[in-house]
Amino acid sequence: MTSLKFPNKLCYGGDYNPEQWPEEVWLDDMRLMRKAGVNFVSIGIFSWALLQPNADTYDFAWLDRLMDLLAENGIYADLATATASPPAWMAVNHPDILPVDENGAQFQHGSRQHYCPNSRTYREYSKKLVTLLAERYQNHPALTMWHVNNEYGCHINRCYCDQCADAFRVWLEARYQTIDELNARWGTNFWSQKYYRWEEIGLPSKTPTYANPGQLLDYQRFMSDSLLDCYLSEYHVLKEMTPEIPVLTNFMPHHKPLDHFKWAQHLDIVTWDSYPEPTKGIPVDQAFDHDLMRSLRHGQPFLLMEQVTSNVNWREHNPMKRPGVMRLWSYQAVAHGGDGVMFFQWRASQAGAEKYHGAMVTHTGDEHSRVYREVAQLGNELKKLDSVVGSRIQAKTAIIFDYDNWWALELPSKPNNDLKYIEQVMQYYSPLFHHNIAVDIVQPSQDLSAYDLVIAPALYMVKPGVAENLEQFVERGGTLVTTFFSGIVDENDRIHMGGYPAPLRKLLGICVEEFDAMLQDQHNAITAAEGSSTLQGTYRCSLWADVIRLEGAQALAHFGQDFFAGSPAVTVNTFGQGRAYYVGTQADEQFVTKLIQHILTETGIQAPIDAPKGVEVTCREQGSDRTLFLLNHHAEAVTVLLKDKMIYQDLLQDTSIQSQIELPANGVAVLRFQI
Amino acid sequence: MTSLKFPNKLCYGGDYNPEQWPEEVWLDDMRLMRKAGVNFVSIGIFSWALLQPNADTYDFAWLDRLMDLLAENGIYADLATATASPPAWMAVNHPDILPVDENGAQFQHGSRQHYCPNSRTYREYSKKLVTLLAERYQNHPALTMWHVNNEYGCHINRCYCDQCADAFRVWLEARYQTIDELNARWGTNFWSQKYYRWEEIGLPSKTPTYANPGQLLDYQRFMSDSLLDCYLSEYHVLKEMTPEIPVLTNFMPHHKPLDHFKWAQHLDIVTWDSYPEPTKGIPVDQAFDHDLMRSLRHGQPFLLMEQVTSNVNWREHNPMKRPGVMRLWSYQAVAHGGDGVMFFQWRASQAGAEKYHGAMVTHTGDEHSRVYREVAQLGNELKKLDSVVGSRIQAKTAIIFDYDNWWALELPSKPNNDLKYIEQVMQYYSPLFHHNIAVDIVQPSQDLSAYDLVIAPALYMVKPGVAENLEQFVERGGTLVTTFFSGIVDENDRIHMGGYPAPLRKLLGICVEEFDAMLQDQHNAITAAEGSSTLQGTYRCSLWADVIRLEGAQALAHFGQDFFAGSPAVTVNTFGQGRAYYVGTQADEQFVTKLIQHILTETGIQAPIDAPKGVEVTCREQGSDRTLFLLNHHAEAVTVLLKDKMIYQDLLQDTSIQSQIELPANGVAVLRFQI
Amino acid sequence: MTSLKFPNKLCYGGDYNPEQWPEEVWLDDMRLMRKAGVNFVSIGIFSWALLQPNADTYDFAWLDRLMDLLAENGIYADLATATASPPAWMAVNHPDILPVDENGAQFQHGSRQHYCPNSRTYREYSKKLVTLLAERYQNHPALTMWHVNNEYGCHINRCYCDQCADAFRVWLEARYQTIDELNARWGTNFWSQKYYRWEEIGLPSKTPTYANPGQLLDYQRFMSDSLLDCYLSEYHVLKEMTPEIPVLTNFMPHHKPLDHFKWAQHLDIVTWDSYPEPTKGIPVDQAFDHDLMRSLRHGQPFLLMEQVTSNVNWREHNPMKRPGVMRLWSYQAVAHGGDGVMFFQWRASQAGAEKYHGAMVTHTGDEHSRVYREVAQLGNELKKLDSVVGSRIQAKTAIIFDYDNWWALELPSKPNNDLKYIEQVMQYYSPLFHHNIAVDIVQPSQDLSAYDLVIAPALYMVKPGVAENLEQFVERGGTLVTTFFSGIVDENDRIHMGGYPAPLRKLLGICVEEFDAMLQDQHNAITAAEGSSTLQGTYRCSLWADVIRLEGAQALAHFGQDFFAGSPAVTVNTFGQGRAYYVGTQADEQFVTKLIQHILTETGIQAPIDAPKGVEVTCREQGSDRTLFLLNHHAEAVTVLLKDKMIYQDLLQDTSIQSQIELPANGVAVLRFQI
Repeated sequence: MTSLKFPNKLCYGGDYNPEQWPEEVWLDDMRLMRKAGVNFVSIGIFSWALLQPNADTYDFAWLDRLMDLLAENGIYADLATATASPPAWMAVNHPDILPVDENGAQFQHGSRQHYCPNSRTYREYSKKLVTLLAERYQNHPALTMWHVNNEYGCHINRCYCDQCADAFRVWLEARYQTIDELNARWGTNFWSQKYYRWEEIGLPSKTPTYANPGQLLDYQRFMSDSLLDCYLSEYHVLKEMTPEIPVLTNFMPHHKPLDHFKWAQHLDIVTWDSYPEPTKGIPVDQAFDHDLMRSLRHGQPFLLMEQVTSNVNWREHNPMKRPGVMRLWSYQAVAHGGDGVMFFQWRASQAGAEKYHGAMVTHTGDEHSRVYREVAQLGNELKKLDSVVGSRIQAKTAIIFDYDNWWALELPSKPNNDLKYIEQVMQYYSPLFHHNIAVDIVQPSQDLSAYDLVIAPALYMVKPGVAENLEQFVERGGTLVTTFFSGIVDENDRIHMGGYPAPLRKLLGICVEEFDAMLQDQHNAITAAEGSSTLQGTYRCSLWADVIRLEGAQALAHFGQDFFAGSPAVTVNTFGQGRAYYVGTQADEQFVTKLIQHILTETGIQAPIDAPKGVEVTCREQGSDRTLFLLNHHAEAVTVLLKDKMIYQDLLQDTSIQSQIELPANGVAVLRFQI
Repeated sequence: MTSLKFPNKLCYGGDYNPEQWPEEVWLDDMRLMRKAGVNFVSIGIFSWALLQPNADTYDFAWLDRLMDLLAENGIYADLATATASPPAWMAVNHPDILPVDENGAQFQHGSRQHYCPNSRTYREYSKKLVTLLAERYQNHPALTMWHVNNEYGCHINRCYCDQCADAFRVWLEARYQTIDELNARWGTNFWSQKYYRWEEIGLPSKTPTYANPGQLLDYQRFMSDSLLDCYLSEYHVLKEMTPEIPVLTNFMPHHKPLDHFKWAQHLDIVTWDSYPEPTKGIPVDQAFDHDLMRSLRHGQPFLLMEQVTSNVNWREHNPMKRPGVMRLWSYQAVAHGGDGVMFFQWRASQAGAEKYHGAMVTHTGDEHSRVYREVAQLGNELKKLDSVVGSRIQAKTAIIFDYDNWWALELPSKPNNDLKYIEQVMQYYSPLFHHNIAVDIVQPSQDLSAYDLVIAPALYMVKPGVAENLEQFVERGGTLVTTFFSGIVDENDRIHMGGYPAPLRKLLGICVEEFDAMLQDQHNAITAAEGSSTLQGTYRCSLWADVIRLEGAQALAHFGQDFFAGSPAVTVNTFGQGRAYYVGTQADEQFVTKLIQHILTETGIQAPIDAPKGVEVTCREQGSDRTLFLLNHHAEAVTVLLKDKMIYQDLLQDTSIQSQIELPANGVAVLRFQI
Repeated sequence: MTSLKFPNKLCYGGDYNPEQWPEEVWLDDMRLMRKAGVNFVSIGIFSWALLQPNADTYDFAWLDRLMDLLAENGIYADLATATASPPAWMAVNHPDILPVDENGAQFQHGSRQHYCPNSRTYREYSKKLVTLLAERYQNHPALTMWHVNNEYGCHINRCYCDQCADAFRVWLEARYQTIDELNARWGTNFWSQKYYRWEEIGLPSKTPTYANPGQLLDYQRFMSDSLLDCYLSEYHVLKEMTPEIPVLTNFMPHHKPLDHFKWAQHLDIVTWDSYPEPTKGIPVDQAFDHDLMRSLRHGQPFLLMEQVTSNVNWREHNPMKRPGVMRLWSYQAVAHGGDGVMFFQWRASQAGAEKYHGAMVTHTGDEHSRVYREVAQLGNELKKLDSVVGSRIQAKTAIIFDYDNWWALELPSKPNNDLKYIEQVMQYYSPLFHHNIAVDIVQPSQDLSAYDLVIAPALYMVKPGVAENLEQFVERGGTLVTTFFSGIVDENDRIHMGGYPAPLRKLLGICVEEFDAMLQDQHNAITAAEGSSTLQGTYRCSLWADVIRLEGAQALAHFGQDFFAGSPAVTVNTFGQGRAYYVGTQADEQFVTKLIQHILTETGIQAPIDAPKGVEVTCREQGSDRTLFLLNHHAEAVTVLLKDKMIYQDLLQDTSIQSQIELPANGVAVLRFQI
């Protein structure tokens, strides 16, 4: 066998679990894969029980045969470390691997992910298995990437066992050095919570009422770090033994338990699993996640590691993806910077909890299904886009997104517990998406000099250096937008004293004297001053109202009702060369859209081309090459006007076009031009 | 005392708990029972604590007096084995009898049914008590039936203790012989679940996500069998010591945890407790349960062991039964094949959790209540129907109902988790009921040659031999109706490969290419071809849509919307001498009613007589005797036309009638004629 | 330092937690307190961890400095015993102090109130701390009151640990003497629950279904008593060492777990914490609680110990109190007999679970907030009302309210589980409130001779002597009103046999033959006879319908629908010199209001003055002084007409007025006159 080395091609394939089938089926799999243009498969993700029948015995024979078969067929292997689901014998012989819930009840073997991330036993068995896999396959021609574990924290992202409590204390001591510092950070002189010795600190499990917010916040950090340590314990083995082979794990959408920015530093390639809710957020939510995943490693192309061909099995109601939708959303991944499109899974299971999860090969078991036909069409089409590999998105707009902020903002006992971070972020991402504005997702302390516009919705936590970073960005001419309940706490959820939003008061030119929580059916109104012609009008607002005192800023809109009627609701402050906007309520979609349009005009930020509503447009760049992606999310055909006097190469149709292009319902075009 | 032997009479009475009252009340009970026509009472159901003050002491003196008193008053005893609620001392001294929930928390003494069905301690104490009871009362003249335990699995039908885990492994080994076979059946190569030794297998308790469906399914079977073993351990003692005395236990309506067909093989008489929901399913649901209970032992008359005279106490809101309703529903039991009408309970408790549960004697404590007056009226009236005892219902229509199918269909992670088996069954039972068609409830592998029409709603699981049984039935001229998501899995919830519904494709002449789950507010339409005049029209459908390819069948109706608009929704296939219908969606009531009418016309199946809407009609047969039951579920009087030129004997009115009969609101008539 | 002795002044201040701040802030606190008229603060409530770093070490130095500082500034200290939240080291070293839930899961340190009330360890540590505090500060000039613990039972009012089980058995043996008596009281011959030895009795924790109601009821009594024992163990130490210093703890609104009447016997001053729901019950619910608190010690003035200045943090949505509302509600407390107005808390926390709970000094940290301005205005205004201190409310109307009744009525498995005691009480309190009728809240066995009208809504439990007490009250000329589901059970939740409502049948002149529970969307109608002109009309009723037979009473209204249409719904019976009304359904607000008006006219009970709707009026009396409180709960100004030819001293405005007074929105007037 000659060694495969992954060429400059888009990856196409899926999770492949041949251990569920007799080996004669494997051969037919190869045939069907080749026919569908599959060049990449993830294997071994749930194979631990098969690879290791007991503590002392390993069996790699079947995996040897599989790897050889893949190599023979020119299919690259994303070889999993198989640690996502420990074998039954381990759970029975070592119950210390099993996670514990907040009531002290222990999870059991029988589904998957039944391990405590701080279990020493689990980690030792894992490292041993990974070492053996790396030894055995390090020179195998099919080995292309290492897939560590699977969807970390999908089910078990909290554990309250004694091992975790011990590890938490070690983690805290490393973070705070002294118990006095911890007491100060957590504010333990409240409710008689002061600690005198590290041994007194426990996990925030079952408490009579709200646990200490500092403790809760650090526990979330600790659990993200504990899972990351799990990952790293495998990563380091692999990096040492096979330094050339990229190592990855697969993230999940809108997944709160992991600080993805911190994790991504330790991945060679970011990959994620996209399962859009069928009833809401389509196609905006997955676009945001694509942008987030691309941004985690500063624009480096990512892989879409999982999506489903048609219906999943784990929602209450699992509708099919309509014909063409799977193809459309696959291209959306590439359009946002993805260099591959993969599925869970290759062949639908005959048994087990996921047998009703869609697959590339359905329960017909052959090529005679609508789904396979679409899969094969897409796979063969994608070959035409190999030149896109490695190209990048260039954004002038960024949205600040921070996991610490997410965790802190959604701790309990807030003024309004309906305030959800993702919803606030999406309120501002959504109009940018609909205007086809390229958006990076960035951290609050990150260098912002590449951007003209930065939006920081609900930036509740302002950590050290962040206010200065934002001030510098605006001072040098940037435009910042932030919203209510920003600038309230420090990195330990302690109030920034001195009047809200203390660290941002100077930049925003306001003081928030009080805030009011609206009930679920309650509303207020905001009216934009007549002067600001693009915003003029009266709009509905809900959820929250700041009582704002101007300290240099100018009011763009005022509240319409209640005792604070007439006081500022939306403000803008000139600061150095730039401007800082503040929105002191949850304005309705109409207002936010107008505000974003106003700011886009002001900053001169534009979409790649003008397109009809419902048509998504992105542009990937490499050298002087530009590749436009046009995605018609409409259920009807539309015509998109292109830039005058430009000639575009239509990569999927292998033609040249000018002036305009017709897109059918759910249609896609990929147009190449040079600058 | 002379020995009582239960005569050919309808049983009438109720649960009798005299231990709650001083013995002077017992004498008044006898007077009130005789006045009300009571001839049968269940005693001792919750008397264990009284019968056995501690591990070594028994006290039967009070029960001796009670049995004697009953015999003296000519009242037959359904003597309970008293094992339904173990005494406090047992729970305290032997905590191993207490069941454990899926989180590992143990139930405690303080209500009832606090025993693990696999507890050896519980079983030993139970057998000892039953042996003593049988020894003591085997020759007592009042002893008429043995009432084993009570409502098995009412509260505790799952236990996750170590004893259950041990028993589960024994049960599995008996079922599958080898661990390889178990692995194959459960599909454990999914999610790394493979077992190498029996000791590795646990109960499907607290898992991070979905447990293995094969394990879940077998656990439900195992728990039904564990409770059955409990029952049998008492049954065998009784059968050995008093082979002449019938042994029973009482079932519950729509009770999923027990496989009633399997249980009924070990009962001498089927009995059940009817508590219709006051807000829905009246009077259809209880009719279905009556038919099920009658069918469990192939038409043998059953006993209605419990119902309430007026309000129960265990719903959130407990309305009264309006005057006349208790009588009407009591006759409904007889009309469907019941040979007795009993109540829980005789005298309303003064204390305890059920003191607000209605009774034959209310808290007035005497005969001066509306309830007692109705009870006495009914009891004295029923004496006129003694000639009905032993007669049977003859049905040409059967509905297939299978507990394995119920369990498997409602396991989690299905395409649409709103799909509930009972609802699908009732969708087809209901129009048959409203047409007064006699229906038997049968198992899928049962001999079907007695029927002209067999309906198998949502026959998701097709076990070995079932497809052949259905094919044979149709081939010989029968008409089969089945519906979406049928024929999908085998007895271990593994997909029947080869295109849905693989084992039924030939019989139905279709292939289901995909299925779509509709959301809760989502609908589609089906339109019946103009040719099929009786079905013609457009109807609403919901929940589910199959994408069907015809393979010999003919389409009777097509979908109206979505990308599969125009593809078949309802089909019929000629197979041998018969026809096989398939309904690939949840059609609305109007369509199902028309379809059933169409098929009744086609098969020539008829009601005993034509009756106005809302009047239920059944017929019990014995030799050449026919007894018509007419039940007016309307709140207004109606006139029912009888067959011309026939003379009917009105058993309740002791008159002869012809041509027609007037039924008042909630009214009942029982008419005898000869053929 | 000279000793402070609390003068005849209204208390004003709040919870003060200076341990959360550096000591330099304390000095500014003193300045801001003096400026705001603060004269009283509660300190040390959550200071245990600070006062006792470990089992053997105490540190009172900071508290010494604080007490001195208060004394120097003329601020009186309500010194807490600091036992509300045990330190972390205690939880770690003595896990037996931690409470256990009904599943056996143990609560952990990390929030507050994590102690089992029956923990010996907790009690010993508590007593030792209290002893040291009393020793140290018994002669301190700032010490004015002892604040024992805090909000007993707020979070933990049930514990299922072994210590509680032991204590429960001791409690039961003391109550019932013999096991036979307990069996009789609990009715254990139901469901085989009979006990033979005390050791067999457990707590009503996790049971398969409803536990024994007698056990559940006694468990609630036992837990109230257990918490009271906790309180008393501190109280006795304090009373012995500082007999002159009043001892108190703070109650909560509508707080079911504690029998406040029983507790209040052991408090020197009743205090409570008022947190009205923002969306309902304003301003009636807090008025009821004020009246209850005043009544607990038979009219002795109470303290409002906690309220919030603006928003709290522990509801899902926490709106601000609008300007003026805090002042209005503060006066409402005084108007109902309060001699002080306090807040939680003085200064808003920077960290911890309550940092978003409003305070007198907000996160601005200074006097520059709307909230502080209102706080300072009120504090300085209240000084004008010092002459009110000690004056009392004189009521001719009483509502019977009983915690045993509350507990029993809301046990599970009732005819209608939507029947809630507080709602039934408020249905009758509310029209009295809106008519500005002074109301005392009394126990059923209390001497009622001071009242002309007594209302006993839903007096489900009639304990020994109660029927006689009510009969005597009516016989001597009083008017009694009671409602459906009254007179049903004895003190152990056993039915009073002999026809509902057995012990009240003679007094009410009726028998309730049956009762019906209405579903949530179900209604009936009641029509008042034409003769009773003030009630005439047809009204809606819901929840419940009694089928009533008259036995001497007269029907005032009849049911309109269902089979009991035309039977009595509301009755009145002449008994001795008085009259006894009965309302056999949940009538709508309109009917109850008319009925109350009818009875007020009949009994001649009047408001202090006639006031427009929405203006609350109360009168406090002392010698010949009368002080009228006029509270405008409207959002608009209103004019209140005063009695002709009277001269009133306006205490807040320092003027004399006649004839009428104008009240702004949320406005308050306090008018003094003499009789």
